[in-house]
Amino acid sequence: MEIAVLGTGSVGRTVSARLDELGHTVTIGTRDPEATLTRADHPQLPLATYADAAARAELVVLAVSGEVALDVLALAGADNLAGKALVDISNPLDFSAGFPPTLLVKDTDSLGEQIQRAFPEARVVKTLNTLTASLMVHPETLGSSSTVFVSGDDPSAKGMVTGLLAAMGHDDVIDLGGIETARGTEMLMPVWLRLMQALGTGEFNFKIVR
Amino acid sequence: MEIAVLGTGSVGRTVSARLDELGHTVTIGTRDPEATLTRADHPQLPLATYADAAARAELVVLAVSGEVALDVLALAGADNLAGKALVDISNPLDFSAGFPPTLLVKDTDSLGEQIQRAFPEARVVKTLNTLTASLMVHPETLGSSSTVFVSGDDPSAKGMVTGLLAAMGHDDVIDLGGIETARGTEMLMPVWLRLMQALGTGEFNFKIVR
Repeated sequence: MEIAVLGTGSVGRTVSARLDELGHTVTIGTRDPEATLTRADHPQLPLATYADAAARAELVVLAVSGEVALDVLALAGADNLAGKALVDISNPLDFSAGFPPTLLVKDTDSLGEQIQRAFPEARVVKTLNTLTASLMVHPETLGSSSTVFVSGDDPSAKGMVTGLLAAMGHDDVIDLGGIETARGTEMLMPVWLRLMQALGTGEFNFKIVR
Repeated sequence: MEIAVLGTGSVGRTVSARLDELGHTVTIGTRDPEATLTRADHPQLPLATYADAAARAELVVLAVSGEVALDVLALAGADNLAGKALVDISNPLDFSAGFPPTLLVKDTDSLGEQIQRAFPEARVVKTLNTLTASLMVHPETLGSSSTVFVSGDDPSAKGMVTGLLAAMGHDDVIDLGGIETARGTEMLMPVWLRLMQALGTGEFNFKIVR
């Protein structure tokens, strides 16, 4: 599948490399491809502007920080996102008061919903925002099954994303329901951050035991 | 140990019965003991006012709804709570706009912190607010290890509570840190509620796989 991964940070690099390894044709979207290429840690995959990457993709992965998510999608362009599955991995973290961050939106709304409202023709699926990048793409390294979640209003987009998650190694994907349920997974961040502090590592994940 | 359980709802009844079974001397605190006794489902254990129950206890369990938590503790009396471990199981749920509820406090504060601030001489330990009553006291019924959390500023109170949790069957208790970390576990409620809807049961729990 032709996939655009928007974002060149840890999540973007990790997810794009794994999707490439799984045989997909990946283009990485970045604000300024030439500037990105000058960085020592620039991605090895093809780079394009957000708009060009999204235009050629069948599925778009949003892997930027939550505070710029809506701006990056505006640069990608509503027309280039229309009708496509839009995988939202971002978390609305507010680091302005230090660590641990608080949330820019919560409880009565979520970033996933804001994105769906801003881009009504995109088929937004919130997922993978509840674990560290390395485990997003290789959950089996934990040695025991753990859970990821999908939230979204479009069943076929969720089905497509669930297939990608399975290919990455996820053996327990829970469909929470519509995009409104992104409130639940985004609000996992506060305990995730405190667990990271208590355990001294981000290499853990939630399993829903039932 | 002499334990007061404040609250006669599902959590109060379930936890008090289990503590009694484990050999503790339990008194149930309620607003009006005579009125409680007229109810068909009244507890079988000794009843007292919140204040009388707290006065005679070494450890106090708060098992009421979050919206009345501070009022109930005021009725119990700061003097009767001073120096004691205060186990806070409550969640700050706001049902005023229907289901799923939102949170009365979150992100930059928590009910656990509000309680600690209001009763500075109590040794507050937030725990067990992340799973359904039956699993609080018999987690082994899930058939697989799952996790509960403790948050509190007093290490010896957390140690005492962790011992009670172990006696109830909890084999994975994570100490998140100070009472500030109650923000994390209280903010698990939104995903817990949506999981209950998606799974069709409240009989599940989080396991931190690491």
